[in-house]
Amino acid sequence: MSKYPETIQKLIAIFKKFPGVGQKTGERFAFTMISWTPEEVDLAVKTFLSMQENLCQCDECGALYEKNDQSSCRFCTNPSRQQNTLCLIASSKDIFTIEQTGIYNGLYHVIDGLLSPIDGYGPENIGFDKLKMRLNKRKVQEVILAFDATIEGDATALYLKRELQTFGISVSRLALGMPLGSSLEYLDEGTLAQAMLARLPV
Amino acid sequence: MSKYPETIQKLIAIFKKFPGVGQKTGERFAFTMISWTPEEVDLAVKTFLSMQENLCQCDECGALYEKNDQSSCRFCTNPSRQQNTLCLIASSKDIFTIEQTGIYNGLYHVIDGLLSPIDGYGPENIGFDKLKMRLNKRKVQEVILAFDATIEGDATALYLKRELQTFGISVSRLALGMPLGSSLEYLDEGTLAQAMLARLPV
Repeated sequence: MSKYPETIQKLIAIFKKFPGVGQKTGERFAFTMISWTPEEVDLAVKTFLSMQENLCQCDECGALYEKNDQSSCRFCTNPSRQQNTLCLIASSKDIFTIEQTGIYNGLYHVIDGLLSPIDGYGPENIGFDKLKMRLNKRKVQEVILAFDATIEGDATALYLKRELQTFGISVSRLALGMPLGSSLEYLDEGTLAQAMLARLPV
Repeated sequence: MSKYPETIQKLIAIFKKFPGVGQKTGERFAFTMISWTPEEVDLAVKTFLSMQENLCQCDECGALYEKNDQSSCRFCTNPSRQQNTLCLIASSKDIFTIEQTGIYNGLYHVIDGLLSPIDGYGPENIGFDKLKMRLNKRKVQEVILAFDATIEGDATALYLKRELQTFGISVSRLALGMPLGSSLEYLDEGTLAQAMLARLPV
């Protein structure tokens, strides 16, 4: 039996749905919210509801956009972006991060998920059919795989590389190496080995 | 300029109001919530609104209770609890934690805050007048100070001890010492010193 009344238990259950939030953090969040003024709670509720109303996901590429600002996706309908280059990402959040760099000018495509046999995510779960239709429609010649440098990201990149090369498409992925500002002392061996293998002429 | 559309920025701002949540975690939480189904978002919104409707704070002691379950505070109106013993805590959350132990049977009193000169919290901010009225009303003979074992908790305990002793009330605070299951190897010096000073006969 929980020590908290039902309303507080329900509140904690909502917060535990967020990544990295367990029972103790959920309790802290719940009591933080309980201490808010009615105006603060209203603002939060209105923000959550406006999220549902205002945010749209592009049917074609999966990018998020605001209905108030644009009537359609600012990438897919933008003729000044390179139409035959596609950057594949695992989450629509990653698009904002890549746009921040300002060095990519092609289109995006959010796949449905990364390969992860441990979670039951196989090739049928990454949305390859939708991607194939897109490749044909845009006559894509280059695909950049921008996934996390994790086992799941690597497996997905390897799988997609094989599939995409049968279409005669040039496939690349983000470089592995030292992050800017990093010092050798704190670099893990795996990253250092990759940086050594992919060493660049100076 | 932020890289996210306004709706997402607002969402992140809400999450950053929770303790320990900065920009990066706020972004993760926002995109987690964006990925929820409309039903999940509705459930969260309903829970937040029901929190405002269902949770009451006792005017006398500050304990939280559910309007649906009880018409009044289950401590203040319970004649089987010791009426002349008062446990002082800094947050209504602490009441649930102390009740969980099952060894305290007196009344509670939530003070308005701990002394913290750095945050501008002085003696006038801890609600001493309200506490004094309560001491008279309940003819309190014993006060237990159950604050955090921090500088703020210590300062508040010291201040209240002095004030309360002028009323001829017996004042105690939670014991300091080794937590159950702890090993000397990982204990900090301060705790170990306290445990040594307050050593118990075996």
